[in-house]
Amino acid sequence: MPAGQVNHNGVGPAAAMVPTYPPPESETEESWVWAQIKAEAHRDAESEPALASFLYATVLSHPSLARSLAFHLANKLCSSTLLSTLLYDLFLHSFSSSPSLISAVVADLLAVRHRDPACASFSHCLLNYKGFLAVQAHRVSHHLWTQNRRPLALALQSRIADVFAVDIHPAARIGKGILLDHATGVVVGETAVIGNNVSILHHVTLGGTGKAVGDRHPKIGDGVLIGAGATILGNIRIGEGAKIGAGSVVLIDVPPRTTAVGNPARLVGGKDKPARHDDLPSESMDHTSFIQEWSDYII
Amino acid sequence: MPAGQVNHNGVGPAAAMVPTYPPPESETEESWVWAQIKAEAHRDAESEPALASFLYATVLSHPSLARSLAFHLANKLCSSTLLSTLLYDLFLHSFSSSPSLISAVVADLLAVRHRDPACASFSHCLLNYKGFLAVQAHRVSHHLWTQNRRPLALALQSRIADVFAVDIHPAARIGKGILLDHATGVVVGETAVIGNNVSILHHVTLGGTGKAVGDRHPKIGDGVLIGAGATILGNIRIGEGAKIGAGSVVLIDVPPRTTAVGNPARLVGGKDKPARHDDLPSESMDHTSFIQEWSDYII
Amino acid sequence: MPAGQVNHNGVGPAAAMVPTYPPPESETEESWVWAQIKAEAHRDAESEPALASFLYATVLSHPSLARSLAFHLANKLCSSTLLSTLLYDLFLHSFSSSPSLISAVVADLLAVRHRDPACASFSHCLLNYKGFLAVQAHRVSHHLWTQNRRPLALALQSRIADVFAVDIHPAARIGKGILLDHATGVVVGETAVIGNNVSILHHVTLGGTGKAVGDRHPKIGDGVLIGAGATILGNIRIGEGAKIGAGSVVLIDVPPRTTAVGNPARLVGGKDKPARHDDLPSESMDHTSFIQEWSDYII
Amino acid sequence: MPAGQVNHNGVGPAAAMVPTYPPPESETEESWVWAQIKAEAHRDAESEPALASFLYATVLSHPSLARSLAFHLANKLCSSTLLSTLLYDLFLHSFSSSPSLISAVVADLLAVRHRDPACASFSHCLLNYKGFLAVQAHRVSHHLWTQNRRPLALALQSRIADVFAVDIHPAARIGKGILLDHATGVVVGETAVIGNNVSILHHVTLGGTGKAVGDRHPKIGDGVLIGAGATILGNIRIGEGAKIGAGSVVLIDVPPRTTAVGNPARLVGGKDKPARHDDLPSESMDHTSFIQEWSDYII
Amino acid sequence: MPAGQVNHNGVGPAAAMVPTYPPPESETEESWVWAQIKAEAHRDAESEPALASFLYATVLSHPSLARSLAFHLANKLCSSTLLSTLLYDLFLHSFSSSPSLISAVVADLLAVRHRDPACASFSHCLLNYKGFLAVQAHRVSHHLWTQNRRPLALALQSRIADVFAVDIHPAARIGKGILLDHATGVVVGETAVIGNNVSILHHVTLGGTGKAVGDRHPKIGDGVLIGAGATILGNIRIGEGAKIGAGSVVLIDVPPRTTAVGNPARLVGGKDKPARHDDLPSESMDHTSFIQEWSDYII
Amino acid sequence: MPAGQVNHNGVGPAAAMVPTYPPPESETEESWVWAQIKAEAHRDAESEPALASFLYATVLSHPSLARSLAFHLANKLCSSTLLSTLLYDLFLHSFSSSPSLISAVVADLLAVRHRDPACASFSHCLLNYKGFLAVQAHRVSHHLWTQNRRPLALALQSRIADVFAVDIHPAARIGKGILLDHATGVVVGETAVIGNNVSILHHVTLGGTGKAVGDRHPKIGDGVLIGAGATILGNIRIGEGAKIGAGSVVLIDVPPRTTAVGNPARLVGGKDKPARHDDLPSESMDHTSFIQEWSDYII
Repeated sequence: MPAGQVNHNGVGPAAAMVPTYPPPESETEESWVWAQIKAEAHRDAESEPALASFLYATVLSHPSLARSLAFHLANKLCSSTLLSTLLYDLFLHSFSSSPSLISAVVADLLAVRHRDPACASFSHCLLNYKGFLAVQAHRVSHHLWTQNRRPLALALQSRIADVFAVDIHPAARIGKGILLDHATGVVVGETAVIGNNVSILHHVTLGGTGKAVGDRHPKIGDGVLIGAGATILGNIRIGEGAKIGAGSVVLIDVPPRTTAVGNPARLVGGKDKPARHDDLPSESMDHTSFIQEWSDYII
Repeated sequence: MPAGQVNHNGVGPAAAMVPTYPPPESETEESWVWAQIKAEAHRDAESEPALASFLYATVLSHPSLARSLAFHLANKLCSSTLLSTLLYDLFLHSFSSSPSLISAVVADLLAVRHRDPACASFSHCLLNYKGFLAVQAHRVSHHLWTQNRRPLALALQSRIADVFAVDIHPAARIGKGILLDHATGVVVGETAVIGNNVSILHHVTLGGTGKAVGDRHPKIGDGVLIGAGATILGNIRIGEGAKIGAGSVVLIDVPPRTTAVGNPARLVGGKDKPARHDDLPSESMDHTSFIQEWSDYII
Repeated sequence: MPAGQVNHNGVGPAAAMVPTYPPPESETEESWVWAQIKAEAHRDAESEPALASFLYATVLSHPSLARSLAFHLANKLCSSTLLSTLLYDLFLHSFSSSPSLISAVVADLLAVRHRDPACASFSHCLLNYKGFLAVQAHRVSHHLWTQNRRPLALALQSRIADVFAVDIHPAARIGKGILLDHATGVVVGETAVIGNNVSILHHVTLGGTGKAVGDRHPKIGDGVLIGAGATILGNIRIGEGAKIGAGSVVLIDVPPRTTAVGNPARLVGGKDKPARHDDLPSESMDHTSFIQEWSDYII
Repeated sequence: MPAGQVNHNGVGPAAAMVPTYPPPESETEESWVWAQIKAEAHRDAESEPALASFLYATVLSHPSLARSLAFHLANKLCSSTLLSTLLYDLFLHSFSSSPSLISAVVADLLAVRHRDPACASFSHCLLNYKGFLAVQAHRVSHHLWTQNRRPLALALQSRIADVFAVDIHPAARIGKGILLDHATGVVVGETAVIGNNVSILHHVTLGGTGKAVGDRHPKIGDGVLIGAGATILGNIRIGEGAKIGAGSVVLIDVPPRTTAVGNPARLVGGKDKPARHDDLPSESMDHTSFIQEWSDYII
Repeated sequence: MPAGQVNHNGVGPAAAMVPTYPPPESETEESWVWAQIKAEAHRDAESEPALASFLYATVLSHPSLARSLAFHLANKLCSSTLLSTLLYDLFLHSFSSSPSLISAVVADLLAVRHRDPACASFSHCLLNYKGFLAVQAHRVSHHLWTQNRRPLALALQSRIADVFAVDIHPAARIGKGILLDHATGVVVGETAVIGNNVSILHHVTLGGTGKAVGDRHPKIGDGVLIGAGATILGNIRIGEGAKIGAGSVVLIDVPPRTTAVGNPARLVGGKDKPARHDDLPSESMDHTSFIQEWSDYII
Repeated sequence: MPAGQVNHNGVGPAAAMVPTYPPPESETEESWVWAQIKAEAHRDAESEPALASFLYATVLSHPSLARSLAFHLANKLCSSTLLSTLLYDLFLHSFSSSPSLISAVVADLLAVRHRDPACASFSHCLLNYKGFLAVQAHRVSHHLWTQNRRPLALALQSRIADVFAVDIHPAARIGKGILLDHATGVVVGETAVIGNNVSILHHVTLGGTGKAVGDRHPKIGDGVLIGAGATILGNIRIGEGAKIGAGSVVLIDVPPRTTAVGNPARLVGGKDKPARHDDLPSESMDHTSFIQEWSDYII
């Protein structure tokens, strides 16, 4: 991410305090991102007193990103039968016992900030992106699952599905640098695997093939972009850097760095001579450039 | 809306108190609609004591439509970190400082009542339609956005997305007389513009084209009808009175008063000789009459 | 459901207490399922103290399935203006005055457990499946509708739509043995009818055809499977045992035991010689076996 | 209670619906009081829309006094760890299994209405008198105690002490026709017994004598009046119809129909020739008529 | 209040921003006090991030003392059946329609700050003093009472009694410049009148004399000090500047600027030659200086 | 405490698991008490399913006494503007950074269990005794006070005063082994000091003498017993092992191991030859044995 982009989001003199990217060697990415978030929240609390209470409660009163996120998730996901204090304990403990959970948080924050032009600040993502929050909560539920604490993992999945309308089975494995944009309606099945630096729009399904137990959900390679409403079913492989068009229904493997579109899905350029692209679509978030090559597409 | 239709929904003698439409010249549309809502709520509170507490809290104890709606939205959208009293203040102040917000409320109420046969009463829409409530809350968040109160606008967007599963960027511009039917999963991007008297079903996306900043979302003309699950991407124009079939994926402009269907979307009648219709589909809500002309459609 | 499958989910010695299926003649299916749920919850409470409070509150402190479900739904669906105690009263009274509501609960629990390989236990379904909970709450709202308590039925529909993102009109009629898998975004219109033993994935719409009042929504036969994101519009009939592919848009009748796929939807095998299958797809949950016969499908 | 007094509290025409006292033979006292409460609440809901929601939720939506009181107590005494639905269940079940609890409710309502000139209506007492509510909740906790459900009884005592600042041990036995006026700070120990038709002001202590287990708290006879701030300690007997002056400290038996005042307490008229009164002071609520006979009292 | 005292409470440089007392002629006392409160809250929010969310929500996000207090009281006094938004409306409307309510708020803030050495700041009083908050809420309930909105006034009294353990009948009239110190257990009857600049400690009762309707409660003159636990009963007059010792029981008039102590209460110096004092005891809060003249007092 | 007393409270076979007192040398008093509490809660959860959810949430799901207490206090003291998660953080951090806070908790638990015959178990005290909970929360507020975090300390004091009706200034110093029995209405001023092993009944005031800043509150020696409603004012000293009778008003020093009673208070036996006792009254909780020596006391 170019430092300039970040700095230009500053409004008024407070922005001058924002540290530049990349952080100096002496500083970790986590501490740099956390410093950014604090500076943004300070700036926003000053300019918008009506939001200051929320910003202090969720960000500015906390000593670390882990505590801030644990606090925010606990208050988002609690219910009258699952108390916020119980969830806070759970998140705090998970984050402190599994530092990789927090490095994934940082990677996702950088990914969202980098790829989504509507993301004005790290704190905006941390506080408001339901896709980001759902993924972080999923990682904790996955962590519980791997520790054989399955009933608790499933209860957490249920809260995420209720609150964010994002339904990810605790057993699903998800990489780092994930952008779940808008996120409503995303469904990810039990044996699905999502690589690193993947971007997934809302209403995307990574579903199974029936009632058979076993490995039955898609495997998504690194750098894949999946457009809104795409449905990918079965234990198939979406190759690295592939792009799945919005609304596509995909039931067979998609080769790397190709684009599949339509219902039923076809490769742009055809099965035998698919048009290969060099960029990583999850980075460019380019949803629509293929349309001149999409032979069926006529209006 | 024919007065008859409204009056026939009355149940029992209380309906006799419902004023007729159009209101007499001495009365504004707002006061007429508000009187309807009060009469409906009175009737329902009498016939259903279990609901009376809810109806008094949300409607019958308030002196105006603006207060009732502010109260209801505040209690719907509040969370443990964004108090209902804070949101109530925000909505009250927005409605009183921007009267056009309330005239849009009235126009939407009339639109829903007119177009949706499942809408039994104005109060049903005011209290229960998540699409209606999401749009009114969005208008306030848009109002904040235009006043450069962006962090608060984004926090409000986030609450709307959590509670109603409707995700509209605060910068998006939306006309009057809008019906967002069922509404779950609707996503509207930052530079999208929606005209007047538009009807949009659930799972509809007005999305962008990638990570480039700038004008990148669809422009929807007046009187357009967008079917369930349609995905419209990019800075394209859906012409006045056009109809987008359910599940369509649209990436190029659609001419006025034509129908686009399918994934990829095509014009009914073909690109060169599309079948033009005269009615406003957002009014007729006619989703399916084109099927005899849809050449690909075979079962 | 083979008893073995159930028993193998037991973890440790507590599983030994799980009764076998089918229940002995002296026991009803309801009491057998309830005993299962209690045993599962006991086992989970013992192995996971962090969840024990939740399990005691929702299951283990209750004398019957009806009370447990009424309690859980009341606490899920309550809001600051619709108190949990009010909803609890409503559910308790509905369940005790309409025993068929509880027999449908049991049938749905058996269906979910049988068909969904991700469903590890009855209690998991009872507590965590938003589709299951939405259907049970819908049945109560339908019960109110048939008693002409329409405003209360509509208020309940609204809460279900907010909390579970499942929007089922109270007038819609739904059979027994229903699996609403993942469920987010399901919309079912006023005059829709769903038969017995139907499986419906998320984002499925059973929608109307326009603003005309009257019978305008689909009729779904017994044993139908509807894939994720399918949109079925109008007063059409989906024949018994038919299968609707994910993402399909269906506007005309589908014959029994055939498969319709695509947007626009076509019958696999063609209109005149559709490939008929013998199994009940709602049982097998087989989403994808048709693809070798789907002539358009190429990647 | 003269019927006239009750009827004169009616405001406007709604009062005409209030039934007269005593009820006709065909009606129980409970149904008469409940009809009164409903009529009062209707009248108040009509004249005060801001309170109507509260009145419908707590009174007007309920079919019986028992349900209304169970609902109100559950919502008053609930906490984030003791859910209102759980308490509602508990109160409902106690009231239905022990009808004497409801007849005591009725007797107390009549007592408060009769004796307290500030009590404008039965519904005022039912909804707003913390002493009344504390006593009814205590009766349930006593009921649990006698069934050997001690931990639950003690948890309920704790909630009553937190919410109403009234601390009555579940084992204490309390008669009918009790007025606990203002009630804040009342403490009643484990082996205390309170007769029928007793009136007790706030800050009154019926305390023990030390750490010895056993019968160690006061026994209060029928018709006794205990003034504000009086402290009565030890297994002593306050005779029927006795009066204890405000602020008195009483450590020895008080004979029937005498008045004890002061710290240390003395009998008005002296130990050997105490002034006996004929009226029941708990009925007259006469706190101060003794002062002309109180020899120490000089200002 | 000497300006010095106020200024010396400042901690660090932020205190430099605190305006001096008395305010310049161009500024009202209300705006001066409000500026103080804002400055204090800013200082505290900066030095204590854990409290900043609370301080922004209750003070710093509000444009006026009236809104801040309305917000704080609404969130303190709300319950599951009396929503905070409803109470907020009520307080906002009362404060804006009755400016004298706010001038009484200011007078009380100055009184507490002046008289109570434990009161470190105006904001401490505004936010934390249950006696102060109870009195302000009572003034609103009294305002409702005088407008004949009695059921609402009584419901508000009940909430004040539950939350603050302060029970003041809505009809009681209370002057300005009141200090209710600690406040727990204070009871003030229907026909009581309290003058200006009165200081009342906790557990004080201004009670009635029995069940007779009519003027039956004490009248407290200006500048009176009533010690902890004092019980004053009947329609008697406590003369201007009188002092009532802690734990006293007073049943007859007390002359101005005299001291009554004990149970039964006697005048210090005797009935015929009482020791008169010149200072206003409510100002000096001098509870104990009389003891050398209290002939009975021996340890 | 005799081990026998504790063990005899066991009900049924679960009691067999209760460890004996004193703990073996290898075990700390804290771990022994915590084991007791867990065993009691297990026993109660088994015998009373309706309470099991509460017991798991507050006790059985926690790994230590500190976490259990922090959780319970946070959920007791939270409000809509002071979130439970914030308070939980505060208590957790205070307990872990100041181990003496937990050793005081243990000492108080042992004191209550030893001295109060109504205290059936340690868990009963931990969960239900408002005096115990108020003292523990006060210790945290005192800890904050000593760290110069005064606004937060005062906010916490305010919550304790609202929820438990116990008002202790954060600056007051309180020893270990404290029993605050019933507790409602206790007020302790800023410069008060309470020694070790003191027992204080409800409505007791340790108050100041006026508005002068400075050392102005009582100093209570070790082993003192203060009866219900006693008012002790000024910077006076209550000597070690002294006993203050219920309702007494004390304004001068009380010598060690003497008894002061009455209003005004006198020494039993007279000033010059007071009756000295050898036992520690705070241990025996003997409130009333002095009455045969109390010459004024006549009924």
